[in-house]
Amino acid sequence: MSQNVYDDPEFHEAYGRLPRSRHGLAGAPEWPTVAALLPELDGLDVVDLGCGFGAFARWAAAQGAHVDAFDLSERMLARAAELTADGARITYGRADLDTLELGAAAYDVAYSALTLHYLSDLPRLLATVHGALRPEGSLVITVEHPIYTAPTSVDFADVDGRRVWPLDRYGEEGARTRDWLAPGVRKQHRTIGSWINSLVDAGFAVRRVIDWRPSSEQIAAQPDLADEVDRPMFLIIAAER
Amino acid sequence: MSQNVYDDPEFHEAYGRLPRSRHGLAGAPEWPTVAALLPELDGLDVVDLGCGFGAFARWAAAQGAHVDAFDLSERMLARAAELTADGARITYGRADLDTLELGAAAYDVAYSALTLHYLSDLPRLLATVHGALRPEGSLVITVEHPIYTAPTSVDFADVDGRRVWPLDRYGEEGARTRDWLAPGVRKQHRTIGSWINSLVDAGFAVRRVIDWRPSSEQIAAQPDLADEVDRPMFLIIAAER
Repeated sequence: MSQNVYDDPEFHEAYGRLPRSRHGLAGAPEWPTVAALLPELDGLDVVDLGCGFGAFARWAAAQGAHVDAFDLSERMLARAAELTADGARITYGRADLDTLELGAAAYDVAYSALTLHYLSDLPRLLATVHGALRPEGSLVITVEHPIYTAPTSVDFADVDGRRVWPLDRYGEEGARTRDWLAPGVRKQHRTIGSWINSLVDAGFAVRRVIDWRPSSEQIAAQPDLADEVDRPMFLIIAAER
Repeated sequence: MSQNVYDDPEFHEAYGRLPRSRHGLAGAPEWPTVAALLPELDGLDVVDLGCGFGAFARWAAAQGAHVDAFDLSERMLARAAELTADGARITYGRADLDTLELGAAAYDVAYSALTLHYLSDLPRLLATVHGALRPEGSLVITVEHPIYTAPTSVDFADVDGRRVWPLDRYGEEGARTRDWLAPGVRKQHRTIGSWINSLVDAGFAVRRVIDWRPSSEQIAAQPDLADEVDRPMFLIIAAER
């Protein structure tokens, strides 16, 4: 079973203060790039893997989709339900993505934002998702970028007067423990090759791979986003069943 | 036109002393990984884009392939011809990959080792190669890894007692000038997303992406290869027409 840090009170409290928690999709600078990879959702069946507070699920439902939204965290699901209007076409469910089962050919779109880097058994989930998508169905995922998950330390460093990202251990796949909002958050580092090959092995055709970086306008409005040009934090992948 | 640094006498002399120049494929630690991505070559038509001294072309011909091998460097081609036995099914030709034309559906396999990161117009070449491959033909390429091409400086640095790769500018695509064997060698940095999306846009299906790292046995035999675990130097991609 995956670590359930999102139900840790200290983590949950800190997570709720992040811009993307307070402002939903508008607080996620990579969201416009991700949205451009999605098909028109009106009338489609969508599964959201790691729905958090449900910002994407509500957006998708507002586009006319029916959404099944899963998360491991009871606290996240409770808050998602509070934020969701009665009658919205969203079904929230608690699930561990390491053991989740889904109906065959039940969905047109599978979506997962910043969740799959927590999974220890990615191939199992991708096989499940492949089976749950209809032919030509879309998978759109964002994960922490391998350049971000790899290093021993995730603090920028000064080298000869330059601000650099101190990369090491890129080729050593496996668990990384980070102090992020709470101590001891456990993530899985995979190389970019592993992410893509896992999708190919599950039967997906890779359509788009984006090492997300902010636009000049975004950096002007929020200067600390310039870090994302030096080392990407988000890897975005679109694939087709 | 691409920079023709391989015909620079100083560069050419230094290049000829590299292990991979002196020992051919056996001097390239990533070669077994690359070879595993190739189909059986017996009877196939193969094009080699950036053939250098012709080590791959001779190996492919020995497997029973017919090989058209192109390079921009007259010195490299002259040495390749010297090393190639009469009667080998290899045709060497001088070509700038930024302007190369190939016959339609003329090849079963396209191969390029450590060359395409010199090109300024990658989409043009990939469209040419796609048109030159027969249906289900294979493309196997190695390029300098984006983590390797990105930074301002390519020297490992010490940060808090750790040896790290000082990554910056990953998101800034474009030319990088390096002093490698000779001063002012010009390469093109592309993100991993750009490499993959260029292939997809040209019509290829991506089959395998490998951030090459050495095996434990290779590190034991050649300890400086451990650097390749901390930051990959080679990106290997296999795709299908």
